[in-house]
Amino acid sequence: MKILVLNAGSSSVKYSLFDMSNRSVLIAGIIERIGEEAASHSYTLPDTDRVREDIVSRNHQQALQVLFKTLAACRVLNDCRELACIGHRVVHGGEHFREPALIDTQVMQRIAEVIPLAPLHNPANLLGIEEAIRQMGDTPQVAVFDTAFHQTLPDYAYRYPLPKHFYAEHGVRRYGFHGTSHRYVAEQAAQCLGKSLSETNLITLHLGNGASVTAIQNGRSIDTSMGMTPLEGLMMGSRCGDIDPAIHFYLSRTLNLSNEAIESLLNKESGCKGICGENDMRAIHRMAEAGDEQAKLALAMYAYRIKKYIGAYFAVLGRVDALVFTGGIGENDAWLREQVCLDMTLFGIAIDQQKNQKPVRPCGNISQPNYGLAILVIATDEELEIAIQAMQCMEQPSL
Amino acid sequence: MKILVLNAGSSSVKYSLFDMSNRSVLIAGIIERIGEEAASHSYTLPDTDRVREDIVSRNHQQALQVLFKTLAACRVLNDCRELACIGHRVVHGGEHFREPALIDTQVMQRIAEVIPLAPLHNPANLLGIEEAIRQMGDTPQVAVFDTAFHQTLPDYAYRYPLPKHFYAEHGVRRYGFHGTSHRYVAEQAAQCLGKSLSETNLITLHLGNGASVTAIQNGRSIDTSMGMTPLEGLMMGSRCGDIDPAIHFYLSRTLNLSNEAIESLLNKESGCKGICGENDMRAIHRMAEAGDEQAKLALAMYAYRIKKYIGAYFAVLGRVDALVFTGGIGENDAWLREQVCLDMTLFGIAIDQQKNQKPVRPCGNISQPNYGLAILVIATDEELEIAIQAMQCMEQPSL
Repeated sequence: MKILVLNAGSSSVKYSLFDMSNRSVLIAGIIERIGEEAASHSYTLPDTDRVREDIVSRNHQQALQVLFKTLAACRVLNDCRELACIGHRVVHGGEHFREPALIDTQVMQRIAEVIPLAPLHNPANLLGIEEAIRQMGDTPQVAVFDTAFHQTLPDYAYRYPLPKHFYAEHGVRRYGFHGTSHRYVAEQAAQCLGKSLSETNLITLHLGNGASVTAIQNGRSIDTSMGMTPLEGLMMGSRCGDIDPAIHFYLSRTLNLSNEAIESLLNKESGCKGICGENDMRAIHRMAEAGDEQAKLALAMYAYRIKKYIGAYFAVLGRVDALVFTGGIGENDAWLREQVCLDMTLFGIAIDQQKNQKPVRPCGNISQPNYGLAILVIATDEELEIAIQAMQCMEQPSL
Repeated sequence: MKILVLNAGSSSVKYSLFDMSNRSVLIAGIIERIGEEAASHSYTLPDTDRVREDIVSRNHQQALQVLFKTLAACRVLNDCRELACIGHRVVHGGEHFREPALIDTQVMQRIAEVIPLAPLHNPANLLGIEEAIRQMGDTPQVAVFDTAFHQTLPDYAYRYPLPKHFYAEHGVRRYGFHGTSHRYVAEQAAQCLGKSLSETNLITLHLGNGASVTAIQNGRSIDTSMGMTPLEGLMMGSRCGDIDPAIHFYLSRTLNLSNEAIESLLNKESGCKGICGENDMRAIHRMAEAGDEQAKLALAMYAYRIKKYIGAYFAVLGRVDALVFTGGIGENDAWLREQVCLDMTLFGIAIDQQKNQKPVRPCGNISQPNYGLAILVIATDEELEIAIQAMQCMEQPSL
């Protein structure tokens, strides 16, 4: 059985085709700059070099045509009947979607209804769905939501201290994101610990370009750092994360910045980039090693803010079986992992320096042996998780 | 030696006169509704009932005239030469004031310079200072700042992940507030523990109408929940505390609220009041006991958000000698203290139910005997702390 995973952005479509019999990737690629003069398509087949082609792709329709032609030309999909379903990544499921959903017009309507909550992402996700249905109407389509895993948060964790009608009438609450990744590494962590996920307590750190941390109790998300939007929480590459909400008034009143300018500032010019001018963590490390004080400060702040969330989520969970690092930074930045775990023996956190330098892939425990809790480094795989969830949805659509 | 403590607001002046030989209060009062048709003055002398008088007070000049006439009439201050100094509460000292300051024109200029950071408070504080100088020019005047105690925060704790020129040129950083209270209870806690403050690690919770929590390491504030303004941090009576900074954009774009409306909303209609319509904690408890679900939710959120800060500050401090509850709610709300300390044995926090019901005044340890860390309930006294600091400033003005 094969499953195609699609992640449609406003100007790109990312895809992976899985053979679910062994969970292997048959082809993975991305079509970029859709709608621009020169679009491009790059993809990788197993054991071959990456292929990059200039293409014409004025819209998502043409992008998906290129995609399906490529699948046929590469002989990874000879007949569309081989495809069990197409799994679509959808960023925002609002309060309605706690699980993946088999797509019909009602589901599409509901995805459209929460566009105000994810104005940049849901419209593009919907475009991808509509076009996939147009071209592959006989193939079932499943929506997998970034927010769904966090729908188990209790009300005292997801509500904001704001007048209740903002929640009741306008959906202002914590939704959380990166749910697919947190769920995937939670499952992997439980396997690694030899425990049932439903009996496992975890703090999962997804640290990539975006970053979030989730408190998982008995396998369920009970709190997470991203909020109504992906701007809240940890300091990120170019997003500010937690700040005093009144800074907005100061920027507006004293510096005459418009709301649009502030929105762009907090999303694109803040975080590590705001502090040291750079949002790529590897570049920041190089700057810090060369003595750049602002880069050192960015790293110190980044780690410090993670430590505070770990402490907070210990208070929420009471017992923690493992701390999990994932995402591009979480999986690859040994310095950061060490910094985050420094002086945390109170929590039973103590890193083994050597293991931390080269964690076992895809799931390595870098904790000191026989000490406190496990510290796991796990390679996340959101595409595979979408495929797994889409498959489960096909098998048990009532879930 | 006598010291008068003045706290001038935009339409009120609060005062206390101390006999510093035994730190006793000779008179304490408040003049309210300055500038309105019917102003009022109420005050208390030791061992007498509260006196309340209607007065004429069109401005702060008349308010202070009433005040000094009352001090003479009540024979608590027969000659202004008895007054060692007047200690003024000033909300915002910016980055300049790390200690109390003997007031001269330069100090007043500096207080004026940070008005953009505290547009509601510093102008009123300055009015009080100017009028006190006009009427009592021969008496030394000392400014004691709410922000000063937090000037020891390290840069990675006080900087926000925003472009650096907002900090360097416009002072956008965490300042923290309630510093006088946190400092006072820290000193009391160290005494209660029989330790030197400079060797004591504390988490101090000031829970009143405003609320903040401070991480104190070796007697110095190293992190605090209020930020550039008193809006950040814990959930409060009517202030929201921490929220997703992007909620602003949603309220503005989707609901067409102006910045002024949002500022008023987050400061005056949020927090407990937003959730259950009530900002007085005693009233909220009565509602919850009568079965009101929104009141129960407000209490659950209020306690939950405190727990998370305690966990975060444990991660920051590593070792904690005592958790300190103070402020109107912290000192009087046994239910809340119990709720905050529930399921926190991981941190060495376990409350003694009986002691918690009636903590010893003014400083009681409500922790289970011989278990974990001390849990102290301490009556704060910001006026006395201002008097103490003003006196120290007179004795060592170079500090």
